[in-house]
Amino acid sequence: MTTPQRVRIVGTGLLGASIGLALRTRGVEVSLADISPVSMALAADLGAGRMAQDDDAAPDVVVAAAPPDVVAQVVVAELARWPQAVVTDVASVKARVLADVEAHAGADAARYVGSHPMAGRERSGAVAARSDLFEGRTWVVCGEPEDAPAVAVADLARLCGARVVHMNPAEHDVAVAAVSHVPQVAASAVAAQLRELSEDAIALSGQGVRDVTRIAASDPLLWTQILSGNAEAVVPVLDGVLDELTQVRDALTSIVSPARAQSAVLPQEASSNGPRAVLARAIADGQDGRARIPGKHGSPRTAYATVAVVIPDEPGSLGRVFTLVGASGVSVEDLRIEHDNGVAAGLLEIDVLPVRAATLHEMLTAEGWRAHVLENP
Amino acid sequence: MTTPQRVRIVGTGLLGASIGLALRTRGVEVSLADISPVSMALAADLGAGRMAQDDDAAPDVVVAAAPPDVVAQVVVAELARWPQAVVTDVASVKARVLADVEAHAGADAARYVGSHPMAGRERSGAVAARSDLFEGRTWVVCGEPEDAPAVAVADLARLCGARVVHMNPAEHDVAVAAVSHVPQVAASAVAAQLRELSEDAIALSGQGVRDVTRIAASDPLLWTQILSGNAEAVVPVLDGVLDELTQVRDALTSIVSPARAQSAVLPQEASSNGPRAVLARAIADGQDGRARIPGKHGSPRTAYATVAVVIPDEPGSLGRVFTLVGASGVSVEDLRIEHDNGVAAGLLEIDVLPVRAATLHEMLTAEGWRAHVLENP
Repeated sequence: MTTPQRVRIVGTGLLGASIGLALRTRGVEVSLADISPVSMALAADLGAGRMAQDDDAAPDVVVAAAPPDVVAQVVVAELARWPQAVVTDVASVKARVLADVEAHAGADAARYVGSHPMAGRERSGAVAARSDLFEGRTWVVCGEPEDAPAVAVADLARLCGARVVHMNPAEHDVAVAAVSHVPQVAASAVAAQLRELSEDAIALSGQGVRDVTRIAASDPLLWTQILSGNAEAVVPVLDGVLDELTQVRDALTSIVSPARAQSAVLPQEASSNGPRAVLARAIADGQDGRARIPGKHGSPRTAYATVAVVIPDEPGSLGRVFTLVGASGVSVEDLRIEHDNGVAAGLLEIDVLPVRAATLHEMLTAEGWRAHVLENP
Repeated sequence: MTTPQRVRIVGTGLLGASIGLALRTRGVEVSLADISPVSMALAADLGAGRMAQDDDAAPDVVVAAAPPDVVAQVVVAELARWPQAVVTDVASVKARVLADVEAHAGADAARYVGSHPMAGRERSGAVAARSDLFEGRTWVVCGEPEDAPAVAVADLARLCGARVVHMNPAEHDVAVAAVSHVPQVAASAVAAQLRELSEDAIALSGQGVRDVTRIAASDPLLWTQILSGNAEAVVPVLDGVLDELTQVRDALTSIVSPARAQSAVLPQEASSNGPRAVLARAIADGQDGRARIPGKHGSPRTAYATVAVVIPDEPGSLGRVFTLVGASGVSVEDLRIEHDNGVAAGLLEIDVLPVRAATLHEMLTAEGWRAHVLENP
């Protein structure tokens, strides 16, 4: 089988429409189907493909881009309708979809290969679709690299600009439980505690709580589908979080009321299992886990130097800094902007190679900016 | 009492040294003390003040910038040593310090006013100190706005560039439990679950888990001091998180094994309290809490348009974009850079006023950049 020439996309939300846009830019013939005629027409108007017709020629590959809780039945129907086509889906849970397809599609299930592009957005729908949504992103394909249907799906993912990784469905589901689903649930639980705070209290929010709760803005219906579709893999990871938090809570309770705690442990054990040791270990465990997340571009973290620039709250400030940075010729590796509540200034942190930090710093200060080179640990 | 002329700082870590640097730029006379002679000399070398001498003139204000677990005894000693001085501390817990000071300082405690600048960093020590660390940041002062000692501390905070907010110690501690301490513990617990993942699995990490776990890189000793110092206020908030997560866990368990759950509830209750309703409510509760965090500069969120630019992984790419953005004259309100693991491209998101988005977009695309205007919800 060669690179897909004719692709049918069922479901024209963010992912379906973005796949259509990406494939169209590579000259692939794309037909679009959706139970919502408005969504389908919108995606077609945006250039994601043409609307499917009853007499369409058979596609090489069908992409089921329906919500996680209905995607298996879409896959089964498409396998039956197109007896030569490879069918994939792009749902963020994989074992459950495979089990449902195998239960209902019989021998046709051999033409199904699940996949998952790691490219969500907080926005949804065809209007948020982009032809470059998958560019440089990881796209998990749940099939053996040498099997023909998996090759077709991997080719489609690469046509969309993605980097293909092969994993089996169970491995995939355990991975996303830890790196996506449980972080989502924890962010929501932390954010939920902010509901009853006073205005004065919430005004103390800084960058930390903003980062931790950013994804708490996500859609409840979509996440209900994702979490219930991956329940089996999420529960053990969530239990790990609950266990860690319960230990911290119990340690804090014993600090508030030490008498109760001291009666339970022998003195010589207290030194290694005392409440403060529990707290320190909880934070240290988090450091260890955090350190495992790969740096930019999947490579080990390079030690960059950071140049911090104070940005006054005036129109055009950031733009003027950008102009200088651009003119400096120093390559920017990463950047962050911190702002604080009630602030008339922000802080732009620019990561550069350590040997270039002094150059950038001198240039900025010479032009009147308050800039500092920060030593990274 | 007028603006502080002579300030003594006890403890020359990040906060103490930064306060010294800030006050020095305003011409305040600063003396520095620390139980570590090396730390004290380093802070003095960096320009944070001169090293304290036995025959120093009495300070107007003493700032106790020692670790949270020893700061109360520093405050008590300084109150006794300088019978005319106002003494403050900058620890991130307040009720506990006040109780300890009141228990040991007698009538001198009337000259103590606790405070807390909301300006931590992930880096620590005098080497990370900056004269502008507090610029535009909120600095909580735990005293009545009209009382003389509180006025002196507020004046000192403003000299450092901060915006002063008055709160009582209990209000402060409840606030930071929710917006700082519990987010820290939750981030650490989520990050701890990444320790045992396979390399393939951890490689699927995206921006979500990076954001949620960023603060998990924090220092275990410092956080042990902070958490144990604020145990009473942290426990109820942590219980709120535990309750939310336990409900999600139980809902997921009942989805995995529906028979067990169905025996416990009547069918007519299942519609509103069924496991999927629990999941949706947990995410929706998080949305509600997240929406309460004020936008940039403490004002309600302005609806900005976002221009997303694809940044190729080549030296100088970001700098070239910056030059163009600067030349466009469009005011940048905020920006983010997303990168994905294993990526040869990043996505720079630039927030601008909606009326300027088209201008910036046209300019970037005319110069050959792939840029998109995103509709924000």
